[in-house]
Amino acid sequence: MDTKRVLIVMGSRSDLPSMEGCMKQLDDFGVSYTVRVLSAHRTPNAVIELSEQAVENGVQVIIAAAGGAAHLAGVLASSTPLPVIGIPIQTSTLGGMDSLLSTVQMPQGVPVATVAIGKAGARNAAILACQMMGLADKDLQQKIVDFKKAQAEKVLADSVVE
Amino acid sequence: MDTKRVLIVMGSRSDLPSMEGCMKQLDDFGVSYTVRVLSAHRTPNAVIELSEQAVENGVQVIIAAAGGAAHLAGVLASSTPLPVIGIPIQTSTLGGMDSLLSTVQMPQGVPVATVAIGKAGARNAAILACQMMGLADKDLQQKIVDFKKAQAEKVLADSVVE
Amino acid sequence: MDTKRVLIVMGSRSDLPSMEGCMKQLDDFGVSYTVRVLSAHRTPNAVIELSEQAVENGVQVIIAAAGGAAHLAGVLASSTPLPVIGIPIQTSTLGGMDSLLSTVQMPQGVPVATVAIGKAGARNAAILACQMMGLADKDLQQKIVDFKKAQAEKVLADSVVE
Amino acid sequence: MDTKRVLIVMGSRSDLPSMEGCMKQLDDFGVSYTVRVLSAHRTPNAVIELSEQAVENGVQVIIAAAGGAAHLAGVLASSTPLPVIGIPIQTSTLGGMDSLLSTVQMPQGVPVATVAIGKAGARNAAILACQMMGLADKDLQQKIVDFKKAQAEKVLADSVVE
Amino acid sequence: MDTKRVLIVMGSRSDLPSMEGCMKQLDDFGVSYTVRVLSAHRTPNAVIELSEQAVENGVQVIIAAAGGAAHLAGVLASSTPLPVIGIPIQTSTLGGMDSLLSTVQMPQGVPVATVAIGKAGARNAAILACQMMGLADKDLQQKIVDFKKAQAEKVLADSVVE
Amino acid sequence: MDTKRVLIVMGSRSDLPSMEGCMKQLDDFGVSYTVRVLSAHRTPNAVIELSEQAVENGVQVIIAAAGGAAHLAGVLASSTPLPVIGIPIQTSTLGGMDSLLSTVQMPQGVPVATVAIGKAGARNAAILACQMMGLADKDLQQKIVDFKKAQAEKVLADSVVE
Amino acid sequence: MDTKRVLIVMGSRSDLPSMEGCMKQLDDFGVSYTVRVLSAHRTPNAVIELSEQAVENGVQVIIAAAGGAAHLAGVLASSTPLPVIGIPIQTSTLGGMDSLLSTVQMPQGVPVATVAIGKAGARNAAILACQMMGLADKDLQQKIVDFKKAQAEKVLADSVVE
Amino acid sequence: MDTKRVLIVMGSRSDLPSMEGCMKQLDDFGVSYTVRVLSAHRTPNAVIELSEQAVENGVQVIIAAAGGAAHLAGVLASSTPLPVIGIPIQTSTLGGMDSLLSTVQMPQGVPVATVAIGKAGARNAAILACQMMGLADKDLQQKIVDFKKAQAEKVLADSVVE
Repeated sequence: MDTKRVLIVMGSRSDLPSMEGCMKQLDDFGVSYTVRVLSAHRTPNAVIELSEQAVENGVQVIIAAAGGAAHLAGVLASSTPLPVIGIPIQTSTLGGMDSLLSTVQMPQGVPVATVAIGKAGARNAAILACQMMGLADKDLQQKIVDFKKAQAEKVLADSVVE
Repeated sequence: MDTKRVLIVMGSRSDLPSMEGCMKQLDDFGVSYTVRVLSAHRTPNAVIELSEQAVENGVQVIIAAAGGAAHLAGVLASSTPLPVIGIPIQTSTLGGMDSLLSTVQMPQGVPVATVAIGKAGARNAAILACQMMGLADKDLQQKIVDFKKAQAEKVLADSVVE
Repeated sequence: MDTKRVLIVMGSRSDLPSMEGCMKQLDDFGVSYTVRVLSAHRTPNAVIELSEQAVENGVQVIIAAAGGAAHLAGVLASSTPLPVIGIPIQTSTLGGMDSLLSTVQMPQGVPVATVAIGKAGARNAAILACQMMGLADKDLQQKIVDFKKAQAEKVLADSVVE
Repeated sequence: MDTKRVLIVMGSRSDLPSMEGCMKQLDDFGVSYTVRVLSAHRTPNAVIELSEQAVENGVQVIIAAAGGAAHLAGVLASSTPLPVIGIPIQTSTLGGMDSLLSTVQMPQGVPVATVAIGKAGARNAAILACQMMGLADKDLQQKIVDFKKAQAEKVLADSVVE
Repeated sequence: MDTKRVLIVMGSRSDLPSMEGCMKQLDDFGVSYTVRVLSAHRTPNAVIELSEQAVENGVQVIIAAAGGAAHLAGVLASSTPLPVIGIPIQTSTLGGMDSLLSTVQMPQGVPVATVAIGKAGARNAAILACQMMGLADKDLQQKIVDFKKAQAEKVLADSVVE
Repeated sequence: MDTKRVLIVMGSRSDLPSMEGCMKQLDDFGVSYTVRVLSAHRTPNAVIELSEQAVENGVQVIIAAAGGAAHLAGVLASSTPLPVIGIPIQTSTLGGMDSLLSTVQMPQGVPVATVAIGKAGARNAAILACQMMGLADKDLQQKIVDFKKAQAEKVLADSVVE
Repeated sequence: MDTKRVLIVMGSRSDLPSMEGCMKQLDDFGVSYTVRVLSAHRTPNAVIELSEQAVENGVQVIIAAAGGAAHLAGVLASSTPLPVIGIPIQTSTLGGMDSLLSTVQMPQGVPVATVAIGKAGARNAAILACQMMGLADKDLQQKIVDFKKAQAEKVLADSVVE
Repeated sequence: MDTKRVLIVMGSRSDLPSMEGCMKQLDDFGVSYTVRVLSAHRTPNAVIELSEQAVENGVQVIIAAAGGAAHLAGVLASSTPLPVIGIPIQTSTLGGMDSLLSTVQMPQGVPVATVAIGKAGARNAAILACQMMGLADKDLQQKIVDFKKAQAEKVLADSVVE
C-alpha cells in the first residue's frame, strides 16, 4: 500500500453505496485515500495489522464503516495512535441504532470519533478527517473554510421559497 | 494456564460483582474455569491470542462479559471455533441496551450466544456453557437435569402465597 | 421422528424465508436436522413434549425462531437440558426489538443463546449449533475452522477496492 | 384449590411488593382470589396445568405478572378460554420495556390483555378483571360504577391548589 | 343504535384496513357489533357520550383503535364500567411505539386492556372481547375452546416441513 | 374561578414538585394563574368543561402536565381554541418517554405545544405561555426580552472556569 | 422581507413536501407567512439574524422544521422573545426520534413548542401558531372555533361505518 | 484569551463533575486548554463568536459537552474549520439518549466527532483531541503511543483473577 493520507475500511462490500459520498468528498478536497473491505470478525488480525502499520504507512486518519454489532472502528482504534472516525451503517432491522451504540459507546481510553448514521455520516467523516489533517495542513484547512463558505452561500442564494 | 474447561473473560474489574453468579454456578456444577480481565480495546492482541490458543489449552466454552460498545465477545468469537457466550453488562446511562446490541447483533459467520443483561445473564451463561459441554459429558448433562428439577421443585414447594 | 442432530422449530410458516440460511448452513456442514412449525401459544403442549423428548430422540441442539412476544425459545428451553438457540424474527412494527427482548431477557436458571435479529441470526444459529456440537465432534469442529478460514480468505482476497 | 374467581400468578416472589395493590383492590371489591408463584420457564407444565384446569376450578379471570422475557401471561393464555391479564413487571435494566413487549406483542389467536408497567398496572389488572366479571355480575359492575364515581369525587374535592 | 354486544371505535377511517380482522373475527364468532369512527380529540363529547351510554345500549365490551398519541381507548375507559380493549395502530414514524405507550401506560384506576400493535392486535381484540363475554355466555366460551382447538390442530397438521 | 390568565392543570398532586418551577416562573413574570388537579381519565367531563369555559373565564393559555399515557393536554386541547402547552412528567419506569410520546404525537387538527420532560419543561412552559401572551402584551414581551438578556448576562459573567 | 405574520424556516429544501400542509393550513386561515430555507449549521448567523429581526419585521410566530440533530428551532428560539414552534422531520434511519428529542428536550430558559413528527406536526404547527395569534385577534380565534366545529361535524357526519 | 490548544465549552456549570476526566487527561498529556461555560441557547452569539475566533486564537480542537437537546457542539461546528468533539451529557430522564442523538445526527456538511455518553466520553474527548493534534505533533503522538502501551500493560499485569 503506497502512501495515502486516509485509510477507509468498511465491514462489507454491501456498505459501498452508503460510502460513496465519503470518497467523493475526499476527491473534492484532493485528499488521497485507500479503501479496504475487511471485517473485525472475519479477519481480526488483518484489521489489527492494518491499524498497527497505519502510522508507518503514512496514514493520518482512519475512517471505519460498519453496521449491526459494529466493532470495526473500535478494533482499529485499539491499535493505533491515529484518530479513528466511525460511521454507523443503517440497518434494516433497527435503523442503525445498533450500529450507532456499538460505535460510539467506547470505554475510557479508546475513543472513536462517531458521525451520523448512514450517508450523511459518510460524507461528514470525510470532512472531519480533513478538519483533523487541516490542523497541520493550512491549504486543506483553507479548503474547509472555502467549502463551508460555498455551502453557506448556496443555502443563502436558495433560501427564499416563493 | 493449565487446563480449565471454561474461559471467562471480562472487560473490566468493575464487572466482577455482576459476574459472581457465573463463577458460583460453575462451582456448583463442579466445572473448572479460568477468569481473565482483558479489554478488546486496550489489549486486542492479548484477547485474540487467548482466543486462538483456547482449543489447544483445553478450553471448551468461552464466556465474555462487557458493557457499552461491548466488542469483547465478538473479538473472541472471531478467532476460535469454540462457542462464545456474551453477557451484556448493565450500564448506568442506557441500562445495558448498548451492551446488548453490541453483543448480539453480530454479522453472518461469527455468532455470539447472547444471554440476558446483567446478573441474570451472568448466571445463565454458566448454565448455558454446561448445557453445551453436556452434549458430550453425560454426567454434566445429568447435573443440568437435576438442577432444573430441583429448581422446579423449589418453585412448586413455594408456589402458594397465603 | 428419526435421529437428527438439530431440531429447528419456528413459530410460523411465514418465518421460513428468514430461516433458509439456517438450513443451508447446516447442509453445508453436513449436519442433519428436522424442521417443525409449532407455536408456543397455539400448541404449548406439543412444544413442551417435543422439548422433553429431544434428548431421547438424539437431538443435540434446538434452534427456535419466533417474532413479537417470542416465547418459543424460552418454552423449549424450559423442558430440556439441551442448549437452545433463539433467533428473534424481524417484525414490521418494531423491527424485531420486541422479538429480541422477548428472547434474550430470560430469568436466572433458563438461558436462551440468542443470536442477531433476522437472517444474519438464522445463519449464525446454524454455526453456533455446530460450534456446540464440535466440542465432541472433532470433524465438525474442523469444518468450523475451515469455514472461518475460507471466510477470512474470501474477505482478504476481495478486500481491496479500486 | 377451592373456588376463587380470580387466579393471580406471578413469576417470582420478588414480584409480590409490586403486586400488593392488585390484591388490595380485589379485596376492596370483595372478589375472591388465589395467588400462585409459578414460572413459565422453571415449571412450564405446572403453569399449563393450572391454566387448563382454571375453568373447571371456577376461575373467571387469570392475572399474570412477570418481568424481562415475560412469557407467563402468554403461556397461561395458550391453555384456557378465559381472559388473561398481563402485568409487565418493572426491570432494573430496561425499566420494563422488555416485560411490556414480551407481554403485549402476542401473535394472532392468543391475546393477553396488557396493562401498564409496574404498580399502576397491578392495581388496574384487578379493576379490569372486575370489569370483565361485571358483565355478568351486576353487583360487581355497580361497585365499579361506585368506585369510578368515588374516585372522580375525590379528585374533584381536591382539585383546587391554593 | 340498536343492541350490539361489541362497540368498535376507531380514531380515523384510515384505520379501517388494519381493523378488518377484528370485524371478521367477531363475524366468525357470530357476535354482533357496531363500528364508529370518532376522535378523542376532534369529538371528545361524542366519545364520552358514547361511552356513558354504552351500558344502557346493551354494549358489553368496547374496542378502541388509535395511533400516535392514542387517547381514544383511555377516554372511552374513563366513562364506563365496561372493559375497554385498546389496539395501538402502527405508525409510519415510530412503528407504533407511540400508540402502544399512549394506550397501555394508563394511571391507577382506569385500565385499558391493551393488545399487540396493528393487525395481530386487531384480531386479538375480537378474541379477547369474546373471552370476556364468554364468562357469562357458555356458548361463546365453547366457541373459543373450539377456535383454540382448531387453531392448534391446524398448526399440528401443518407442522412438519419437508 | 375569577380571571386568571393562565390555567395550569396537572394530572395528580404528585406532579406538584415537578411543577413548582412553572408557578415560580409565572410569579416572576407577574402573570396570574390558577392551578387545578384534574384527571383526563378520572374526571373527563370536568376537564372538558374546564377547557370549554376557559375562553369566557378569561384564560389565555392552558398548561397541562401529566405522566404515562398522558392524555390531559390532548383532552384539554380538544375543547378550546386556546393554545395548550403539554409538559410530559418524568416516569420511574420509562423515564418519561411514554409521557412525551403521549403528549406530542397528536393527530392533525389538535396540536399540543410540547416542552421538555420534567422540571426543565415545567419552567419552559411558563416562559412559552408568556411568549404567546406577549404577542398582544408588549409589557410582558419586554419582560421576556429582559429575562433572556439577564439570563445571557448571567451565563457570560460566569462563563470562565478557572 | 415585508410584513408577514408567520415566519416558516426549514432546514432543507427536501423538507418542503413534509411542510405543504403547514402552508396550506395558514392559507386556509388567511394568515400571511414567509418561507425561508436556512440551516442552523450551514448559516448560523443568518438564522440568528433572522430571529433577532423577527419582532421588528412584524413576525408574530416562528415555525421551524428540521430533522436529525434538529437545532434549527432551538437556535431561532435563542434570539427572539417570540414563541417558536418546532416540527421534527421524519428521518429514514430513526423515524424521527432523533429530530423529536433534538427539538423538544430544550434546557430551562429557552422553550420550543414542539408538535408531532412529520406531516401531522406540520399542519398542527400552523394551527398552533393561529391559536397563539388568536389571543389578540378575535377574528382568527373565531376561525379556530369554526375550524374545530367543522372538523367535529365532519367526523360526526361520517362516523357510522356500515 | 491567550493561546491554549484546546477549547472546552460546556453548556452548564452542572456539567463540570462529568467533565473532570477531560481536563485531567489533557493535564496528563501536558496539553493546554481553556474552559468556558456557555449556552447555545442562552448565549448563541457568544458561542458563535468564540468559534469564529478559535483559529486566530490558536485553538486547534474544540470540545463541547451538553445534555438534552444538545446543540452546543453543532453550533460551534457551524462556525469554524476546526474539528469539534461532542460529549453527550447523561440526563436523568432518558439516560443521555437525547444528548447523544442531538449531538451525533448532524446533517451533511457539518460533522461533530461524537464520543460516548458521560464520563467515559469526557476522558475520551481529551484523548481524541490529542490524537488529532498528534498528526502534526510527533511528541504528542508518542505520548498517545505510550499511554496506550501503559494502559495495555496495566490491564495485562492485572488480568488474572484468582
